[in-house]
Amino acid sequence: MSSVIPVTLPHTAYEIVITSGCLPQLGEYLNHLKLGQKILVISNPEIYDYYGDIVVNSLIKSGFEVYTHLIPPGEPYKTLDSIAQIYDIAFKNRLERASTMLALGGGVIGDMTGFAAATWLRGINFIQVPTSLLAMVDASIGGKTGVNHPQGKNLIGAFYQPRLVFIDPLVLKTLPVREFRAGMAEVIKYGVIWDQDLFNQLETQKELDTLENLEKEFLQTIITRSCQAKVDVVSQDEKESGLRAILNYGHTLGHAIESLTGYNTINHGEAVGMGMIAAGKIAFKLGMWTEKESQRQDKLIEKIGLPITISSSLNIADVLESLQMDKKVKAGKVRFILPTEIGKVIISDRVSAELIEGVMQELI
Amino acid sequence: MSSVIPVTLPHTAYEIVITSGCLPQLGEYLNHLKLGQKILVISNPEIYDYYGDIVVNSLIKSGFEVYTHLIPPGEPYKTLDSIAQIYDIAFKNRLERASTMLALGGGVIGDMTGFAAATWLRGINFIQVPTSLLAMVDASIGGKTGVNHPQGKNLIGAFYQPRLVFIDPLVLKTLPVREFRAGMAEVIKYGVIWDQDLFNQLETQKELDTLENLEKEFLQTIITRSCQAKVDVVSQDEKESGLRAILNYGHTLGHAIESLTGYNTINHGEAVGMGMIAAGKIAFKLGMWTEKESQRQDKLIEKIGLPITISSSLNIADVLESLQMDKKVKAGKVRFILPTEIGKVIISDRVSAELIEGVMQELI
Ligand SMILES: NC(=O)c1ccc[n+]([C@@H]2O[C@H](COP(=O)([O-])OP(=O)(O)OC[C@H]3O[C@@H](n4cnc5c(N)ncnc54)[C@H](O)[C@@H]3O)[C@@H](O)[C@H]2O)c1
Ligand SMILES: NC(=O)c1ccc[n+]([C@@H]2O[C@H](COP(=O)([O-])OP(=O)(O)OC[C@H]3O[C@@H](n4cnc5c(N)ncnc54)[C@H](O)[C@@H]3O)[C@@H](O)[C@H]2O)c1
Ligand SMILES: [Zn+2]
Ligand SMILES: [Zn+2]
Repeated sequence: MSSVIPVTLPHTAYEIVITSGCLPQLGEYLNHLKLGQKILVISNPEIYDYYGDIVVNSLIKSGFEVYTHLIPPGEPYKTLDSIAQIYDIAFKNRLERASTMLALGGGVIGDMTGFAAATWLRGINFIQVPTSLLAMVDASIGGKTGVNHPQGKNLIGAFYQPRLVFIDPLVLKTLPVREFRAGMAEVIKYGVIWDQDLFNQLETQKELDTLENLEKEFLQTIITRSCQAKVDVVSQDEKESGLRAILNYGHTLGHAIESLTGYNTINHGEAVGMGMIAAGKIAFKLGMWTEKESQRQDKLIEKIGLPITISSSLNIADVLESLQMDKKVKAGKVRFILPTEIGKVIISDRVSAELIEGVMQELI
Repeated sequence: MSSVIPVTLPHTAYEIVITSGCLPQLGEYLNHLKLGQKILVISNPEIYDYYGDIVVNSLIKSGFEVYTHLIPPGEPYKTLDSIAQIYDIAFKNRLERASTMLALGGGVIGDMTGFAAATWLRGINFIQVPTSLLAMVDASIGGKTGVNHPQGKNLIGAFYQPRLVFIDPLVLKTLPVREFRAGMAEVIKYGVIWDQDLFNQLETQKELDTLENLEKEFLQTIITRSCQAKVDVVSQDEKESGLRAILNYGHTLGHAIESLTGYNTINHGEAVGMGMIAAGKIAFKLGMWTEKESQRQDKLIEKIGLPITISSSLNIADVLESLQMDKKVKAGKVRFILPTEIGKVIISDRVSAELIEGVMQELI
């Protein structure tokens, strides 16, 4: 079983290929893209240990000249310095306009590789081979690339589209469970904001908290539907002027929680889970969403093993202040994405600080 | 007298405004663009000393909140480090998506400011106020932005279009004469490759070697025609796949000469002048161009005060080798842009090393 999602944008088109066990065929797929001979594979040592050989052998077998560059794992390495190192490697190996940078990794590797590809010789070919669930369903799609500024996440970057997104769900077998759940939080998000069927499929599945309990077919289906949801949204709004905001469902509060906990104790997926629960309650209190559907959402979040209460160490006044600082604030109003039914959300700036505070109290 | 050139590209449109004495009106022009309130003016101390106050006062009078950042003059500062410093300033002053970076300077400042604007928050508003002739007629148009890699010029960058190019030819009065002539080399280039009328106008003008000899109207006309020529070419080929190559007329050999002399003794304009003379002779020897027209070109180059012989210290074997390394080489063949009549060129890979060598011998 192989899924292919065509992505058609005003000035470019590419495919997202999702096939269990496809990794050894990567080279063959790339042969259709008329790339130059040189490919620089960028990864981190953890991921490269697992999948580096498969990828490199496949590329060599298909006639590519392969170079590799490994960056230590983790968000702290998502910096302009790491990009400068990629440039040095690109120069050393004489990458040309027709050459390719290929990201083999999670969102950190994908974002950096994309930015380096966007800016080396003003843009060379870029291939995404996402290996984390979050990268598969979120980070690898939509063309956002970039690095962190010492004082803020993702402040430096470019919109740049890959020539191919190549997803082998089977590589998730080595992904740490906490990372898996973080990705599942985004999958649930797509169910709530866009795809009722996806939501229903997740609900019907008995266990969702680890990969072991999932059939190959089920996994491929939910990844495919999630990718399709993101593609639907970003194709209608490539540069983030309107609709794309709905992808921030659960993220308004999520980001505040993440930044207050220093991105350590609570990870992105956990924070987004809490954010979705809070947004659901807010929507219910505003009379926009039924209690029943809001509870169905919360149960799903619980089922993937994410916490459904907010750590009591979190100071609610701090959260409210942090929300005010967030870039999604327009003219002093916090913009919330709120569900109206499963598969549909609206954007609202009618959410008062009191309401947010009340809902957060309930979640402690 | 005011000239306005509309630039229409697939996904954006903007204007090039060319008006003698317009600098104090900059703020009013920007008011039409619906920019956010914050503008970061990026310049170098030399240029800022002359024109900083005029620009900043005009912006403040129009209600903008103005920040400035100065980078030391010169190509050695066109680095990723300088960009990182711009990011720091952008962060410190909380530039937002709707904010603007404005380049007040020559091509070095323009290229860097454009790249910083392209990559801060994945793209904020960018305004070009070119102050050198070369920046007015060449660097500020076409969307190429970027910086140098320690081991090669312009290897890092992005295609990014400004919201406005705002040209006041009168600022050229303070431009060093050697820089003026470098810009004039590009003006002649447009005459030869694209605009016969421009060429004729330059020919009719008695003296061309310094700005003092030029009428305001004449200066504005040749700048406008040059900008129009570049716009014509790049609009048909935004991302440099075909036609845009003709802008490299005189540059194939020019770059080789520049890089061999270490970008110091011979500057860009001088090298391009020599390159055009050589290309003209090659075209003549291949029977593509008349000797008469080729001599008309050489006379014009002489009239703007550029050297018409190649320094004997230049080793011709080195030049030929350097040509082979150039990025304009396709499959081992050096691609030359050759005139067929004034205002028309073709792209040829029929130029043998012997022919190049012979022509260069003649120029010593
Ligand atoms: N570009 C976008 O649109 C977008 C969207 C969302 C997130 N992001 C970015 O993505 C990043 C987060 O991505 P992430 O969650 O993938 O984090 P990550 O890239 O840090 O990966 C998480 C961890 O999992 C490991 N890993 C990944 N795949 C593995 C596998 N198959 N087997 C074993 N280990 C594996 C990684 O080595 C890493 O330690 C953030 O920097 C975020 O800003 C970008
Ligand atoms: N983006 C493009 O398409 C493109 C095209 C051609 C060249 N370039 C780039 O442009 C740069 C060259 O541009 P340049 O020739 O303007 O060099 P530059 O920016 O270094 O300016 C030349 C000198 O003139 C000074 N100067 C500029 N305007 C002045 C004024 N009005 N009064 C007094 N002094 C003034 C500058 O301070 C500098 O010392 C190179 O880095 C080149 O790569 C870019
Ligand atoms: Zn997320
Ligand atoms: Zn030039």
